[in-house]
Amino acid sequence: MVGLPARGKSFISQKIVRYLSWLSIKAKSFNVGNYRRRTEEHPSADFFDMHNSDGLKKRQQAAAAAVEDMMKWFSEEDGVVAILDATNTTEERRDWLLKLCRENFIEPMFLESWCNDDKIIMKNIMDVKTTSPDYVGCDPDASAKDFIKRIEKYKQVYEPLTVEKNGDLTFVKLINVSEQVIINKIETYLESRIVYYVMNLHIRPRCIYLSRHGESAYNLEGKIGGDADLSERGYKYAQRLPQLVKEAVGDNDVSLTVWTSTLKRTQQTAQFLPYHNHKLQWKALDELDAGACDGLTYEEIEKQFPQDFKERDEDKYEYRYRGGESYRDVVIRLEPIIMELERQENILIITHQAVLRCIYAYFMNVPQEESPWMSIPLHTLIKLEPRAYSTLVQRIKADIPAVSTYKEKGTSQLGEKLDGFNSSKNLITGAPLSQ
Amino acid sequence: MVGLPARGKSFISQKIVRYLSWLSIKAKSFNVGNYRRRTEEHPSADFFDMHNSDGLKKRQQAAAAAVEDMMKWFSEEDGVVAILDATNTTEERRDWLLKLCRENFIEPMFLESWCNDDKIIMKNIMDVKTTSPDYVGCDPDASAKDFIKRIEKYKQVYEPLTVEKNGDLTFVKLINVSEQVIINKIETYLESRIVYYVMNLHIRPRCIYLSRHGESAYNLEGKIGGDADLSERGYKYAQRLPQLVKEAVGDNDVSLTVWTSTLKRTQQTAQFLPYHNHKLQWKALDELDAGACDGLTYEEIEKQFPQDFKERDEDKYEYRYRGGESYRDVVIRLEPIIMELERQENILIITHQAVLRCIYAYFMNVPQEESPWMSIPLHTLIKLEPRAYSTLVQRIKADIPAVSTYKEKGTSQLGEKLDGFNSSKNLITGAPLSQ
Repeated sequence: MVGLPARGKSFISQKIVRYLSWLSIKAKSFNVGNYRRRTEEHPSADFFDMHNSDGLKKRQQAAAAAVEDMMKWFSEEDGVVAILDATNTTEERRDWLLKLCRENFIEPMFLESWCNDDKIIMKNIMDVKTTSPDYVGCDPDASAKDFIKRIEKYKQVYEPLTVEKNGDLTFVKLINVSEQVIINKIETYLESRIVYYVMNLHIRPRCIYLSRHGESAYNLEGKIGGDADLSERGYKYAQRLPQLVKEAVGDNDVSLTVWTSTLKRTQQTAQFLPYHNHKLQWKALDELDAGACDGLTYEEIEKQFPQDFKERDEDKYEYRYRGGESYRDVVIRLEPIIMELERQENILIITHQAVLRCIYAYFMNVPQEESPWMSIPLHTLIKLEPRAYSTLVQRIKADIPAVSTYKEKGTSQLGEKLDGFNSSKNLITGAPLSQ
Repeated sequence: MVGLPARGKSFISQKIVRYLSWLSIKAKSFNVGNYRRRTEEHPSADFFDMHNSDGLKKRQQAAAAAVEDMMKWFSEEDGVVAILDATNTTEERRDWLLKLCRENFIEPMFLESWCNDDKIIMKNIMDVKTTSPDYVGCDPDASAKDFIKRIEKYKQVYEPLTVEKNGDLTFVKLINVSEQVIINKIETYLESRIVYYVMNLHIRPRCIYLSRHGESAYNLEGKIGGDADLSERGYKYAQRLPQLVKEAVGDNDVSLTVWTSTLKRTQQTAQFLPYHNHKLQWKALDELDAGACDGLTYEEIEKQFPQDFKERDEDKYEYRYRGGESYRDVVIRLEPIIMELERQENILIITHQAVLRCIYAYFMNVPQEESPWMSIPLHTLIKLEPRAYSTLVQRIKADIPAVSTYKEKGTSQLGEKLDGFNSSKNLITGAPLSQ
């Protein structure tokens, strides 16, 4: 990363790590600030002055320690994409990094966040003063002032990337988030994916609403897959949904786009929603394809395909149904959905259990091995509110009973999962990635 | 489009039109040169001099006629993405276009191809002197000289897009193909898709090799779908394939990457190929999912699902198997494959009939309604060589018999399609898009 403080470098780093991890690409962010805090926990702006030789030394040591850990992670843990989350504002520092990368056969790509939009910068400064470990326990106003002073110190030595001087480097430069993007010598597949992803990021506030379809006839019979109609209770949920959404959205006059799958039960669930001109069907939102097991109950699967049943329980993320899909397959076909979700503002997605687990895992940073075991009950609206370093989540239960479709590991029985989501409304935040 | 002559504007325009059309997005390129040739068929460089008032007038008239047709196409034919393929090198011309777009509620995006790499420019000039209708019947050397002179005329008035002057416009600027890309104020989904697509284009020569899997046990029984093993003859094809590929590639020491689907028959077909470290499995290359009809013969489908059988014959591109896919669905899941194919160099794809039809349709510009009816026989290697305005194709038949899997419209019987591909080797070129 390259950029002054308060330019969203950590935000972008963490988004990239989350996106790549979700795609099973091993990625990790190394935040130099965390290393620096080992010797300097609450530095004032003067610590960052270029004439402060003690500060300079400690900061160099922190960068060296972060890079050392990063190289170890590459060689010992088969890391694929490491992000060095630091200012790296001088040519000298970047030359040092380039040399290290070349010695270790690492392909370097620089990602600069450049910003002269005061509104964005001030918003970042307000975030930092309340969330940065550097200012824990400090007066917020004093923190903001000190932080602005710190930025000034960095500005004195800042050498932005330019095509003229850095034309031989692989780099992407984001100007005012993604208002303007300069891309130079992008060559590999991964570089191209990362560039496209960051191009699509925005920081406008918005919410994403998730719901499974209402209870279906197949749900009642305990069957998986198929293209059944809603049950009577499922129909009631569809009728209730407009009111639930209205409550979740609040008073604001928010425009919402509704995405469903191509299966009847999601479209029937969306039928009473008022956003007529803003309904989209995505084949990519169809339920995980159970292949040979489509239309069976878990008991029938256990009986007819005992070996498969066991294998799936042992590695539910990787297990691919005969002639069907695995969770990993679903994640890959959901990638364009995630990309489009990043670009969009307020969206309501009505889809299926496995698909919602994958989408939820992306936003909440749930590890892959856990995501297929998450509880996403029927007749519940989930509201996600992405913030800089985490996602706020709220579950709103419709007061309409439905069968449980949750299958505990090692059994073919369905039952409720105790997941701490039993109250009708509650608020938790997604686990932030380690800073 | 914006750019001097010989900057690949028509190439990029036609690639975008082909890509969007393939994705069912109605797109058309309007080439101002074609309109100008109505009054000036073989102009010399002097025609393009800014002091030539007759030339200037005729060129303005040509631009106006192209834009008029374009606006008609938007309003009368529900066009979605029009490309005005012209130099549009002056601010004045671009301001005129902007005004017209605003009056007609068209969102304008400028795509500039800027190039100072003499090798690329000379290659384009060599292409133009042999392919441009402006120089039909002229001496190639004289044509090249005149064309270079024409470029000089344009250079005298050229005002490239810059962030400083054009910061309020939506534009993308490609520098030396895609060595460097500047993106400004990209906002909509379509803009973002087009930008990502052109970012991934390259003009390095390469070939794409396509093959279906060898004949399978299911093919012998006339069944569709499934995950069967190769038949004895299919196994023979797998053994023969390395030699076929060697012949197709020629003497060059070309490195090849092999892509297969996740189904056994494609992997068994690839098993004797030597490119061990360059084999990739893609779920997106799996055969069209026949849903409820998986594992049936066409006769059984006709008997068990007579209505579906008829509907599929009537609109094979749109028909979606119950619980399965349509050709349109396959195209959408193949989109990342096409994007990656554009980025890559030499690739051998071993996959299935419907999937190959879709990939072939993209490169050969086959209309969607025809692509599901194309003949892609078993035991045949197809070599595609993308050129600037068309794709060269060569079909190399292995001398190993196989059943036909071609189903004629209106029948459930399988049989050979007479398609002009009966010789063991032949060469045709894909229909170029109208210039």
